Amino acid sequence: MEELRRSFQAARHQVSGHGKRNVGVLKDALRNVADETGSDIYGNGAVINDFEQKIAALLGHESAVFFPSGTMAQQIALRIWSDDRDNRHVAYHPLCHLELHEQDGLRQLHPIEPVLVGEHDKVMTLEDIKALPEIACLLLELPNRELGGVAPTFSELETIVAYCRERGIRLHLDGARLLELLPYYDKTASDVASLFDSVYLSFYKGIGGIAGAILAGPKSFTTEARIWKRRYGGDLISLYPYVISSDYYYEQRKDRMGHYYEQAKHVAERLNAIDNIFTTPRVPVSNMFHLHFKEEMTDVTARLTRIQEEVGLGLVGYLVEHDGYCSTEISFGDAFDAISNEEFEQLMTRLTADFSA
Amino acid sequence: MEELRRSFQAARHQVSGHGKRNVGVLKDALRNVADETGSDIYGNGAVINDFEQKIAALLGHESAVFFPSGTMAQQIALRIWSDDRDNRHVAYHPLCHLELHEQDGLRQLHPIEPVLVGEHDKVMTLEDIKALPEIACLLLELPNRELGGVAPTFSELETIVAYCRERGIRLHLDGARLLELLPYYDKTASDVASLFDSVYLSFYKGIGGIAGAILAGPKSFTTEARIWKRRYGGDLISLYPYVISSDYYYEQRKDRMGHYYEQAKHVAERLNAIDNIFTTPRVPVSNMFHLHFKEEMTDVTARLTRIQEEVGLGLVGYLVEHDGYCSTEISFGDAFDAISNEEFEQLMTRLTADFSA
Repeated sequence: MEELRRSFQAARHQVSGHGKRNVGVLKDALRNVADETGSDIYGNGAVINDFEQKIAALLGHESAVFFPSGTMAQQIALRIWSDDRDNRHVAYHPLCHLELHEQDGLRQLHPIEPVLVGEHDKVMTLEDIKALPEIACLLLELPNRELGGVAPTFSELETIVAYCRERGIRLHLDGARLLELLPYYDKTASDVASLFDSVYLSFYKGIGGIAGAILAGPKSFTTEARIWKRRYGGDLISLYPYVISSDYYYEQRKDRMGHYYEQAKHVAERLNAIDNIFTTPRVPVSNMFHLHFKEEMTDVTARLTRIQEEVGLGLVGYLVEHDGYCSTEISFGDAFDAISNEEFEQLMTRLTADFSA
Repeated sequence: MEELRRSFQAARHQVSGHGKRNVGVLKDALRNVADETGSDIYGNGAVINDFEQKIAALLGHESAVFFPSGTMAQQIALRIWSDDRDNRHVAYHPLCHLELHEQDGLRQLHPIEPVLVGEHDKVMTLEDIKALPEIACLLLELPNRELGGVAPTFSELETIVAYCRERGIRLHLDGARLLELLPYYDKTASDVASLFDSVYLSFYKGIGGIAGAILAGPKSFTTEARIWKRRYGGDLISLYPYVISSDYYYEQRKDRMGHYYEQAKHVAERLNAIDNIFTTPRVPVSNMFHLHFKEEMTDVTARLTRIQEEVGLGLVGYLVEHDGYCSTEISFGDAFDAISNEEFEQLMTRLTADFSA
């Protein structure tokens, strides 16, 4: 697996992402910022407050708070809604970030008992939600990253929202990759985000910033979120390195999400044409998909390593083993534009030769 | 008060600090870092791990973890020692950062019941500690910021440490400003820090970085601290903007702490010579002290505003009212070096004229 990773990183170009995560990414964002620009100070100051207001407006919400991370922002959102409804139960999908990647922070830090809703291999349905016990809040991740960036249709979403509204269930949107989904929905960020009581947006996924997140909602909600941000140690004296870079890459990429989405659909179609390769979803609905190889992992690893070394393109940096196949994640950004048609066709030819039945 | 703040900020030079907190501070730190330098990724990578090891060595501890903030680092330290001793009680001074500036985060996020030890107006003594119920951990802040940067003598400290060790009480050092205290102790960082089970060091006080903290201790402790850092949402994909600037300003200022200490002693002596002005401590033991004016606050505000406008030096940015006097905090860094003798004497002359009995 180490060889596969090395061949991926050593390649001239990678299929996924926005290019290397290095200090140049921060320097580019700072280049045109005057040295005299004042730091934010513990959440105050134009540099942070202007950006908060800009993203609040984008999302159609009253107010927003910039956080160092989505992990912190989302736990806090769920805690506020749990207190608000005086109910310890919040519901989310079994593949939710809070369930998989946060070392059980929500349960360890709060008197909250999450309820898992929906099945492991698909997005939750209205029927799943109807079967829930009484809950304070439902978290929906749009698109669902761990399922390959999938989402319900917009009308299914509206039905779910209406059901929850009727029952007084608070709705929180894990919109880490919300912008990446908008071309499929053909909606504005506000069309989607304003269906929810609160929204989290990340700035280092499709937007490709350094780190940082926005949590938006009503003023009463963000006022409380700022108190919790202080409690968590997220109210840093200076968050401007993340704020400035978030704003810079947001401006640079906000209108490119349709382009990334088209790349994802195009490449998925080409890959699905190879016998022992398939993607989920088959037709992407965002800038990403999961890529699967229906063969033994050791074998796939060896073949992909060789192909990546010889073609000089990085497609797969790691593989996860499943029963009868192995998988990776592909997400599109600026990096793919650096790849010529010839290089891409060479990659496809090699994959077809190595993975056809 | 707003006028006072404005006159402070508009002044050519400020007496306190390292100069303005602006984007130039970050740009300076990045200037000689190659664009190709790779980001840390969720706590891994040379840029973060090398710095962690360097500061662990400085502090004479086995291991260290870089945190976005001291708030997060210290709550986590106390939680780990509380679990370790299976005791919900941890003790700290009533003016501890956790008690004053964290919106009660420790109690809100953990099953911990802090016990306040010592009196509001002085550092805790061995007698205070002997009067405590059974506790898991004692937090000592050296120097104590809210008391004007004071500290017990090194031999008093050793006595406290010996007492706690005998009783199996874990010792955590809030060493946010530890380096600033070393010239008074005439000890190395490791001489002091290795008396403790765990240590927190800040990089934006005397060191003057952007933000960031180190938590050091035994390997088993930092391993657990990394898990909690993830739970808190502090395990950002990229912390390098803070790491690089922390390292840069650490190298620039680590050997200047004696100089800042001498400045503090010199200026305190001059101020104490004025009838209605006094400092606590009278003779500073670090780079800071509290400055008090024995007159009515509205009056002091008006006079200081006028002096600062006329002399063009910023001494006081805010005042806090007490019974019969009002106070501010002064801490020395690079800024004072930019002030000429003539300017300083002019400030002293004006203060003497306005505040003598």
